[in-house]
Amino acid sequence: MTGLDSNHPNVFVIFGGTGDLTYRKLLPAFYDLVLQGVFDANNLKIVIIGRRDYNSQTFLDRALMGIEANARFKKEDLEAKQKLSQMVSYYKMDYHDLASYAGLREYLSSLFETAVRYQFYLAVAPSSFSIITEKLRLSHILEDVSAKQLLIEKPFGNDLQSAIDINAMILKSFKEDEIYRIDHYLAKEMIINIMTIRFGNQVFESLWKYGEIDNIQITATETIGVEDRGSYYDHSGALEDMVQSHLLQVLTLLMMKEPTDDSPEAIHTAQTEVLKNLELFDTIENSYIRGQYVSDGKVNSYRDEERVDPQSSTETYAAVEFRYNKEPFKDVPIYVRTGKRMDKAGTYVAVQFKPSKMYDGRELDPNVLIIRIGPDEGIYLRVNIKKPGITSEVQPIKMDFCQSCILENRYNTPQAYERLLRMALEQDHTLFASWDFANISWEIIDAIQKRAINNMLHEYEVFSSGPDAADEMLERNGHYWINDTVYGETFKF
Amino acid sequence: MTGLDSNHPNVFVIFGGTGDLTYRKLLPAFYDLVLQGVFDANNLKIVIIGRRDYNSQTFLDRALMGIEANARFKKEDLEAKQKLSQMVSYYKMDYHDLASYAGLREYLSSLFETAVRYQFYLAVAPSSFSIITEKLRLSHILEDVSAKQLLIEKPFGNDLQSAIDINAMILKSFKEDEIYRIDHYLAKEMIINIMTIRFGNQVFESLWKYGEIDNIQITATETIGVEDRGSYYDHSGALEDMVQSHLLQVLTLLMMKEPTDDSPEAIHTAQTEVLKNLELFDTIENSYIRGQYVSDGKVNSYRDEERVDPQSSTETYAAVEFRYNKEPFKDVPIYVRTGKRMDKAGTYVAVQFKPSKMYDGRELDPNVLIIRIGPDEGIYLRVNIKKPGITSEVQPIKMDFCQSCILENRYNTPQAYERLLRMALEQDHTLFASWDFANISWEIIDAIQKRAINNMLHEYEVFSSGPDAADEMLERNGHYWINDTVYGETFKF
Repeated sequence: MTGLDSNHPNVFVIFGGTGDLTYRKLLPAFYDLVLQGVFDANNLKIVIIGRRDYNSQTFLDRALMGIEANARFKKEDLEAKQKLSQMVSYYKMDYHDLASYAGLREYLSSLFETAVRYQFYLAVAPSSFSIITEKLRLSHILEDVSAKQLLIEKPFGNDLQSAIDINAMILKSFKEDEIYRIDHYLAKEMIINIMTIRFGNQVFESLWKYGEIDNIQITATETIGVEDRGSYYDHSGALEDMVQSHLLQVLTLLMMKEPTDDSPEAIHTAQTEVLKNLELFDTIENSYIRGQYVSDGKVNSYRDEERVDPQSSTETYAAVEFRYNKEPFKDVPIYVRTGKRMDKAGTYVAVQFKPSKMYDGRELDPNVLIIRIGPDEGIYLRVNIKKPGITSEVQPIKMDFCQSCILENRYNTPQAYERLLRMALEQDHTLFASWDFANISWEIIDAIQKRAINNMLHEYEVFSSGPDAADEMLERNGHYWINDTVYGETFKF
Repeated sequence: MTGLDSNHPNVFVIFGGTGDLTYRKLLPAFYDLVLQGVFDANNLKIVIIGRRDYNSQTFLDRALMGIEANARFKKEDLEAKQKLSQMVSYYKMDYHDLASYAGLREYLSSLFETAVRYQFYLAVAPSSFSIITEKLRLSHILEDVSAKQLLIEKPFGNDLQSAIDINAMILKSFKEDEIYRIDHYLAKEMIINIMTIRFGNQVFESLWKYGEIDNIQITATETIGVEDRGSYYDHSGALEDMVQSHLLQVLTLLMMKEPTDDSPEAIHTAQTEVLKNLELFDTIENSYIRGQYVSDGKVNSYRDEERVDPQSSTETYAAVEFRYNKEPFKDVPIYVRTGKRMDKAGTYVAVQFKPSKMYDGRELDPNVLIIRIGPDEGIYLRVNIKKPGITSEVQPIKMDFCQSCILENRYNTPQAYERLLRMALEQDHTLFASWDFANISWEIIDAIQKRAINNMLHEYEVFSSGPDAADEMLERNGHYWINDTVYGETFKF
């Protein structure tokens, strides 16, 4: 089912191909894959579609600059560049114009003599997804191929109804198993690793199984503000931008039952099973904290950012308290938080275990498993040991594995898009979101947003740890946010 | 009950005080304690008893050289040396001669004007223990004091009967709670830590409780040979020298139930409860492997060592497979091994957990908790994570905490004798072996030795990993010796 097939070369078509994503992510990833010998002009041609007045050469001149800046393998490799140049061509057309698809059809079918697989990558706004898929169908392009795939970027819609509408339109041209919904979070090394950590280690599997988990925390914070994404962001906000897709994906990987096998279907089924049973822990007021960053006198408030409504009530910080009321997670709070312009930038998971108590009655710090997703990758377990010396004092220490500290891993860890493109071309759905997942996650987010109309918008100063209300949410359960204190710390070793 | 009491200064009397132990361990430890302000001439006087023709000054001249070489705090501290010099005196006598104890009595009672506590430290052969304790009693020295303590070094006898005899004799002069049986292993930082690790961490406590342990391994190996201890060692061997005391202590700390409180009695009771239920795992032939090192052509065979019988059948390597048939350890093998002239020097515990299996059916390396006792101190957990890159390969990694890698710990970790002397003077029995423990551990070792008369003596080459038969003992259960691979390895960080 998976694997590259040399009898069926690929034609990879990027709509909206002159945008940032192509220069910064897609072509650098293809370059890295060419360097590794995965692709060459015999098994892959890449067609860039745009309205700009480039030809293949002028496009490539621009693209190669992006590749130099963004490829993982920094070494100048003329052969690889030449190989990639032979694979990439530019095709000028307006994708709104049905008539122009006839020419595209002819062009695409001229690239290989044998039967090919087409991949259509839509680097365009979700509202254009159905425009393109419909015209691909009407122009009979989709009939020419042995296999076809559609790759689309999140957001898959901007609410439940739009997601349903877009999906219904797309399904007229592509079948569900031909659709690859990209959530680049899922391609991060340590997120993929969550399943291996949970199910490939008897120690962790037991702790999960026997209900030794006290609470789970998922944190993704940034120090940057809304940057140049003001017009998009002001209509979505932290909950939609981060929680709906990325963080709910992480949550399901942490909570799901062991899949029955390693097929994408088994994994997706286990994940959506979690979503179907997810609830807010408490009332909407108590379990969903919204925040918006305000100036410290030096750095802009959110409302002063470019292309943001000066009266905006969009949240740049969201903390949600979930509950997954199935054993062994009954009454276990699952906290999710994300924010911009925070004091620290980092994505990590903290699994806090039940309290630790000594035989002398002392209550010690709880054990915590931290999975560090970015910027550094690794895992560590906080445990208690006796302080050295003639003392019975106990101190928490970290049993640490820093994956990104190992030099060869820095070079060997593929970027998210490199992994995604390769897996898509191998027809492996594992790291792509299923429609079920997209659908149910929008249901959850929609329901929260509808109920939250009276929820307060808490101001928090830029570069702070977020609104106090988010701390109070945990304090009600006797919990506190667990910080990944490795960030910014220098090891004493 | 514990704590130093300034109203009751201490007179610490060392019989056999001109031996190596005084110069290398006891006085350097006292020096370090003086430097830390724990002792001075107001609360402690140290009396060295020997037959040699020293006076206090000539003894001190020798002793100070030993202190310089062996004290933990290397800095030259004239004040501390002067303080110590005021505390130490030399008393010449033959401890076999009852008449000379009258003079000793007078001398000791002259040292302080207030009521004192006497500590008698017997740095002599076990056969002399009862000679001294009886004469201390007969000469009425023991009647002069507000409290008295007896400190004796292992071995407590050389088999069960001699241990019982010696103990019975000692008990005529000292009560059990006045006797401090020193096993310096118990004062090692990470051995004390075993209890905190097990009972101060919910994650480990759960794994123990739920029967997730597959087997336990205790390793103590040396690269040195028998050195200058040939005449003693040839009559004891690895089983008596290491397993009877040190390694059975470690074993009980790993297997015991949580003590009901933190009193020495509660801890000792929990420990001896394990010993009482300990059995060989299988037959004597299968569960006790004896080895003796032989030359590689460059380094001596054991039989060629000084003061060793050239026909000696004493084991320099012992591996024993125990069973503690109570839940949650039913059918869990507990492997203990120790040897001289091995390929690596290191003392550590390996707790191997039940097998790890992935949802795709792959059987992965089992998780292992390693507690590193020496030379380096620390703990780590071997877990499986996905190999970085576009692969689902899994690799075992170490989540590591290296205690001795932290510079300040190197300075802050007291030496075993420093801890033992201080705790004895504070009347804290926790780190001293109870008679029950000594008694039952001798029972176990005696029983093994008696049944093992037909067990083969396996030759192993110097600097090897020991006899193959010891590997085969584990292979019968599908196990293998877990090496602490951190030793000698350079971290890639």
